[in-house]
Amino acid sequence: MSKYWSETVKRIEPYVPGEQPRDRKYIKLNTNENPYPPSPNAIEAIKRSADETLRLYPDPECDDLREAIACDNGLRKEQVFVGNGSDEVLAFAFIAFFDRGREIVFPDITYTFYPVYAKLFNIKYRLLPLDPEFNIPYEGFFRENGGVIFPNPNAPTSKVLPLAAIEKVLQNNPDSVVIIDEAYIDFGGETSTGFIGRYPNLLIIRTLSKSHSLAGLRVGFALGNEELIEGLNRVKNSINSYTLDRIALAGAAAAITDRDYFLETRAKVIRTREYVVEKLNRMGFSVLDSKANFVFITHPGIPAELLFKKLRERGILVRYFAKPRIDNYLRVSIGSDEDMNCFLDALGEIIKT
Amino acid sequence: MSKYWSETVKRIEPYVPGEQPRDRKYIKLNTNENPYPPSPNAIEAIKRSADETLRLYPDPECDDLREAIACDNGLRKEQVFVGNGSDEVLAFAFIAFFDRGREIVFPDITYTFYPVYAKLFNIKYRLLPLDPEFNIPYEGFFRENGGVIFPNPNAPTSKVLPLAAIEKVLQNNPDSVVIIDEAYIDFGGETSTGFIGRYPNLLIIRTLSKSHSLAGLRVGFALGNEELIEGLNRVKNSINSYTLDRIALAGAAAAITDRDYFLETRAKVIRTREYVVEKLNRMGFSVLDSKANFVFITHPGIPAELLFKKLRERGILVRYFAKPRIDNYLRVSIGSDEDMNCFLDALGEIIKT
Repeated sequence: MSKYWSETVKRIEPYVPGEQPRDRKYIKLNTNENPYPPSPNAIEAIKRSADETLRLYPDPECDDLREAIACDNGLRKEQVFVGNGSDEVLAFAFIAFFDRGREIVFPDITYTFYPVYAKLFNIKYRLLPLDPEFNIPYEGFFRENGGVIFPNPNAPTSKVLPLAAIEKVLQNNPDSVVIIDEAYIDFGGETSTGFIGRYPNLLIIRTLSKSHSLAGLRVGFALGNEELIEGLNRVKNSINSYTLDRIALAGAAAAITDRDYFLETRAKVIRTREYVVEKLNRMGFSVLDSKANFVFITHPGIPAELLFKKLRERGILVRYFAKPRIDNYLRVSIGSDEDMNCFLDALGEIIKT
Repeated sequence: MSKYWSETVKRIEPYVPGEQPRDRKYIKLNTNENPYPPSPNAIEAIKRSADETLRLYPDPECDDLREAIACDNGLRKEQVFVGNGSDEVLAFAFIAFFDRGREIVFPDITYTFYPVYAKLFNIKYRLLPLDPEFNIPYEGFFRENGGVIFPNPNAPTSKVLPLAAIEKVLQNNPDSVVIIDEAYIDFGGETSTGFIGRYPNLLIIRTLSKSHSLAGLRVGFALGNEELIEGLNRVKNSINSYTLDRIALAGAAAAITDRDYFLETRAKVIRTREYVVEKLNRMGFSVLDSKANFVFITHPGIPAELLFKKLRERGILVRYFAKPRIDNYLRVSIGSDEDMNCFLDALGEIIKT
């Protein structure tokens, strides 16, 4: 604590990302990265854009990338906002659409960055407890609120909310913005993009980090009504006119455009997930129904924290949250078949001993 | 205006960056970009880092880049913070060190992003009017305040404040943070870095956009006491754990390390500036004493706005600010010798007619 810190800095509780250790080689199943490399077109585009034009500022409007995303989602460029990872887009959305005076709502078990943003921007929130099966009891979002936000699929539970439920949430919140964080939507959930034309209160946030294997490039985006996108632009232009560098703009556009590669790697991740789920079930684990690139698992006999430690000793990183209700679960990212077999073998050994 | 916008978004007045038109080829002297390409080592490092590791998140600590910057400035890594351009670092600093309740101070003529941040974060400010020669009357910073911020050299005036004056500002503000925005320091001013050990209230902010020819890569940094750097980290980790992508981290570290190239291109820019100043003086312009990579000029006979328009018609972009006190000035970036000769020739023609 420093006497020079603002009241805000004294108050906030920063987010702690999954560890990225450099002390030895690990099998990394802790930050939901994609096991497959990005599209070769993206890598090629990045190399091509590494030239003397780097002396010039990037396009502040990010037109080419927004056009590529719009085209990929059947929208217009004016319905697309891009930013430095979906985390930055989420932060901007909290500033743009949530007010200090009005309480927002999100699930009690969800992406742990939401309460961090709320504390940073001094926005009150109430938690909507998941039901005993870890489903979102979405009727809870119908009560008066200053905004709604939840991931679909939810994280770290991996469970999805069907479109019919989402439409009811939109219908019951005509005066507040409903943010659907679709970071993991590409792995089996149904996107809410089709609702954008009908519901001006809907903002969808996505990322290229997971399904496009570009966690290292920092590109996220939002889809929604023009007025919401304009609100995000006003915030961005009050913080940093150029949040995406020339290289990221070029690489992201190329990745989005390479739809075949995306479909192929996504299918591989889903296939591996189904295989892993089956094996885990046979080993006695409970596995929540996952539509994400990770699974959320618990074992009736061995505490999750112990499993976490024993896996780490064997060079395998998974994510453990020491939080109420989920402190006996592990979140395990879906890696390559090879990595997942190592993980399953290690689990098998740990359970036996 | 949308009913979904927060009070904040309704209130803010976003920054307007210099235009980046794509309708035709311009000689761009409007955004203080460097006319020379970035270090070949930086381009090489970027190409080398465009590989399958992009599927992984970047190092959230940015250790290698911070180490390179620390080494280049005779500091320790713990005294260095890095971010997505100096604009992002400035925004984080406003959150980290300035409070709603206490009025901060900055010059009336200065970087126009400061009042934008202040409005966004609801921080009161008072303006310190520059003297008639556009110097900062720095004793004005000695009065009770909640923080001080100014660029050195100042923008768009290009004038520098000597170190002796800066030390007095630091001494007279033991309880508030003094932010010195050194975006242009490499072009002839003296850095305040040497004060960091003695003054825990000093935060210096720099960018690779200008002197390292990397406007397109979006890398800025802050130098200061560990406690201030920790404050910035707390803010960053409450917004976006990874603001610099893998490519930017690699390219920036390589650029910082290539000190010879930096010294060479910097010397070229300064040489061209001195040449341009001499020519402008001969043409009857008043030119403020510049220690930046731009000059701030006015002509006794022809209004700046008219010059701006006539230059634009000739395919030459400079920056004109329609603001009190400086609405008869132009800010002109120092380009290549060739570009500056085109600019001088065009000015000559305009003045004659």
